[in-house]
Amino acid sequence: MTVLGVALDTEVVQGDDIPSLIDKAIREKNLGLSDGDVVAVTQKLVSKAEGRTAELDQHDFKAKLELIKEESTRIVRRKGELVIAETPHGFVCANAGIDASNVERGVVTLLPKDPDRSARRIQRYLSRSHDADIGVVITDTFGRAWRVGQVNIAIGCAGIEPMTDHRGTVDRYGNELVATLIATADELASAAELVMGKTKMTPIAVIRGSGVKTGRGKAQDLVRHHRDDLFR
Amino acid sequence: MTVLGVALDTEVVQGDDIPSLIDKAIREKNLGLSDGDVVAVTQKLVSKAEGRTAELDQHDFKAKLELIKEESTRIVRRKGELVIAETPHGFVCANAGIDASNVERGVVTLLPKDPDRSARRIQRYLSRSHDADIGVVITDTFGRAWRVGQVNIAIGCAGIEPMTDHRGTVDRYGNELVATLIATADELASAAELVMGKTKMTPIAVIRGSGVKTGRGKAQDLVRHHRDDLFR
Repeated sequence: MTVLGVALDTEVVQGDDIPSLIDKAIREKNLGLSDGDVVAVTQKLVSKAEGRTAELDQHDFKAKLELIKEESTRIVRRKGELVIAETPHGFVCANAGIDASNVERGVVTLLPKDPDRSARRIQRYLSRSHDADIGVVITDTFGRAWRVGQVNIAIGCAGIEPMTDHRGTVDRYGNELVATLIATADELASAAELVMGKTKMTPIAVIRGSGVKTGRGKAQDLVRHHRDDLFR
Repeated sequence: MTVLGVALDTEVVQGDDIPSLIDKAIREKNLGLSDGDVVAVTQKLVSKAEGRTAELDQHDFKAKLELIKEESTRIVRRKGELVIAETPHGFVCANAGIDASNVERGVVTLLPKDPDRSARRIQRYLSRSHDADIGVVITDTFGRAWRVGQVNIAIGCAGIEPMTDHRGTVDRYGNELVATLIATADELASAAELVMGKTKMTPIAVIRGSGVKTGRGKAQDLVRHHRDDLFR
């Protein structure tokens, strides 16, 4: 598997045509996409193009909390200025995904309204442009309940099966694998982060040879239902 | 970045010299390791060699619960036969890491006693053998609180800094990144899983060009302290 970072040297603003911008950046790197390739794109890029930004002085906690409430359906935990909220998508994350990094001062980005839909738009464009079955993952860095640090996960995807289901398959010892459902889309996002970095202007990555199944799954399917959730 | 799966065609048993077995498998693939390469190894392989296995009929829930209790310091949540436990390492995971897949019938693997130490042994051997600074990550698939499916994470590491700390650095807009601490070791583990698969006998992966910093960090550092944990 190879993971290649693709830089973008233009500033993205509301209304920009993200699919064609991504395609152009990939072509400028002389990367021809082919069946099974997955293109990872940061939430930041998508949110800016979709106008999902707000003015906020991130040091004004009261204003920040107001915005978090607007962007969430529920505050899951709060400890001082640390706020873990549930978004309308069902994501549980710090600050409801509001993020002040890699955006101009005094402005924050919000999560895309429907990241799966955003992914599909990009996926259709790239698949047509390259005449191939391309997968797309829209990524964001989320914290975890019991572990330090953030990892990139998939908040949107298209053209792939976000989960690899090993349940029912049999290992070489004849054991049926009963509980192995891998969140492949999240692993693709994490692999992409390693080449994207955080302050570097590399909001796109092309992943080749991951073996991910093409399909019609959504990242929304990776959200655990409330009824199955022991920690919400 | 490239991620290459390395198959192992021998059956690992207690007492096997894992560092030399891994080195041999890598050399048989004609992969010369060089500075900055990271070798990911599954928990399963390490646990088997270290004799961290137990006899258990995984369908006997009462016996399984007893073993989970022995392997954990605390049951964090329980819902029917689903048991989320905290291990002596501080990991919060299903069944305290007890796993019946890819092991002979009637036997389960337990987590290594000290996965960072296991990683260091492998790291020292490979670094000497290849006269290079090699990183090692020992991986296991863990579930997450609010998301469906499991992802590979690092339960042990050596030769690398498991976290990439962007705090205090300034993005291109002059914003200081205040809360960006990436769990790089976990992302390396997730990238490795994409080539390891689950039923395939590929318990080793070589990751090149990840840009991870060499260092002396431990995967133990990725365990969130109880005092900072809002969900334990």
